[in-house]
Amino acid sequence: MGVFSKDREFFELFEKVAANISEAATVLVAAMEHFTNLDSWAREIHELEEDGDMLTHDIIRRLIKTSITPLDREDIHALASTLDDILDCIWGTAERLPLFRLQEPTKEAVSMSKVLLTTVELVHKAVTKLKEKNYPQMQEYCVEINKLENRLDREFRDALGRLFDEVSDPVLVIKWKEIYEHLEDASDKCEDVADILESIAIKNA
Amino acid sequence: MGVFSKDREFFELFEKVAANISEAATVLVAAMEHFTNLDSWAREIHELEEDGDMLTHDIIRRLIKTSITPLDREDIHALASTLDDILDCIWGTAERLPLFRLQEPTKEAVSMSKVLLTTVELVHKAVTKLKEKNYPQMQEYCVEINKLENRLDREFRDALGRLFDEVSDPVLVIKWKEIYEHLEDASDKCEDVADILESIAIKNA
Amino acid sequence: MGVFSKDREFFELFEKVAANISEAATVLVAAMEHFTNLDSWAREIHELEEDGDMLTHDIIRRLIKTSITPLDREDIHALASTLDDILDCIWGTAERLPLFRLQEPTKEAVSMSKVLLTTVELVHKAVTKLKEKNYPQMQEYCVEINKLENRLDREFRDALGRLFDEVSDPVLVIKWKEIYEHLEDASDKCEDVADILESIAIKNA
Repeated sequence: MGVFSKDREFFELFEKVAANISEAATVLVAAMEHFTNLDSWAREIHELEEDGDMLTHDIIRRLIKTSITPLDREDIHALASTLDDILDCIWGTAERLPLFRLQEPTKEAVSMSKVLLTTVELVHKAVTKLKEKNYPQMQEYCVEINKLENRLDREFRDALGRLFDEVSDPVLVIKWKEIYEHLEDASDKCEDVADILESIAIKNA
Repeated sequence: MGVFSKDREFFELFEKVAANISEAATVLVAAMEHFTNLDSWAREIHELEEDGDMLTHDIIRRLIKTSITPLDREDIHALASTLDDILDCIWGTAERLPLFRLQEPTKEAVSMSKVLLTTVELVHKAVTKLKEKNYPQMQEYCVEINKLENRLDREFRDALGRLFDEVSDPVLVIKWKEIYEHLEDASDKCEDVADILESIAIKNA
Repeated sequence: MGVFSKDREFFELFEKVAANISEAATVLVAAMEHFTNLDSWAREIHELEEDGDMLTHDIIRRLIKTSITPLDREDIHALASTLDDILDCIWGTAERLPLFRLQEPTKEAVSMSKVLLTTVELVHKAVTKLKEKNYPQMQEYCVEINKLENRLDREFRDALGRLFDEVSDPVLVIKWKEIYEHLEDASDKCEDVADILESIAIKNA
């Protein structure tokens, strides 16, 4: 009974972490769409990033204290630190917008951040399936995450092509390329989380 | 007997995956050397990438269904997804060539893609040793792969140096740097595969 | 008794590897500060990198020969290869300085390389705790390493901002951006080592 409630705690902490990432991605989409007061959007994401850090440390702390865990200790640790990486990438993207003195969004940046939001929401859904031990459903979400990662990859390539074709200021090219790369990194980290979840599903299948 | 034949299936799927990557790398070298109809070379690699995806999903599907596996489940999963990453990088490189409207290859791009092909062929050879359980030979191939990764790293640096010295158009510098980085990423992923194979060799030594 | 002395050998090899990385980071800071004879500083780091390679191969060789190891074989292997990655990044940074014909350092590059040195020294300290099995202390160093990684991340962003604001030559922007990215990569690899050490601490807690 005690073990069961501790298991629950782990899963619920992971769900909180994933919900927090979704929130940050939602704010990032809003920032890209509005493109005003970029400093204040970035600060909002920074606060979510700090909340995420605390949740992650809480998971690690419990992991050290608890002798029986609902999943392999390595998997819990890998999942916690890779989820944290997603949020770091989102924060890194948000902070670059005001810092680079960008005046208006590109439609590609808006679109890529929306694809990222959808991916992050699927990560959230997939993480929720851990508690239910619904591995086949989790696995399906992982396949979806991989497909969205490929889509963002492709949007990134096309965005680069358009950047090279239409933007003549090389420094502006460098700036947007850097933003796109950060969105792509965030999406890569979602794929890494899907790999970890898939590996958990395979072990427990 | 049944288990033995299932083991065989896993190893042979991995060999198919690795052979498929070698083919993609061969097409990439041809694309770099000819540098005409870049769209059609890219499409050819895209088809190989889709074949690779299906093989990878087949491995994962079997992994979920099978209770006894010839290697640790985590290792099979890591190997499958990292081999897939190599092919993604090769495809990403090929797609960028027409998209960036590059007119002629640099000799460094041709040379780097050839080193990549040699590396990928060694990955194929190393993977073949899994079935034979010839771990010392596999280990030797892994050392070779690491050396070639260092060589491509060095060629990449020198290529950047020459780019900065000889190309005056900053956007052309950015484009080729991006291509070189993708070739380097593909080579990094080969090193990751070598690390996984080395880890398998160490466990089974 | 025999096992004990072999354990000792593993830990001491890791300490040598970590000390070697600290030395390379110290030379990198000196190179950034002096910014003369950049070729000869790079050669010095290259020699340390070759020493590091030999130590890493020695660890792998012993790992294959030894049946009982002080830590999980996977962890020893992951630790060895990720420590090696840090040194590769430091070397890559050092080699780029003369190759890119940079005339003077930016104050951001000096500062980032100093933060990297501090991070690497903490990696050394954390690795030393393996032998003592002082996991709580090791864990604390890992938290410190993560904080420093965040700090270098932030310095990297600000350095990019200043680069875009103050440097008008786009190719010079690309060159310094590339140097900063390599320093950041080295710091990322330190975080990866901290993750591996934290995972070891969690297993053995």
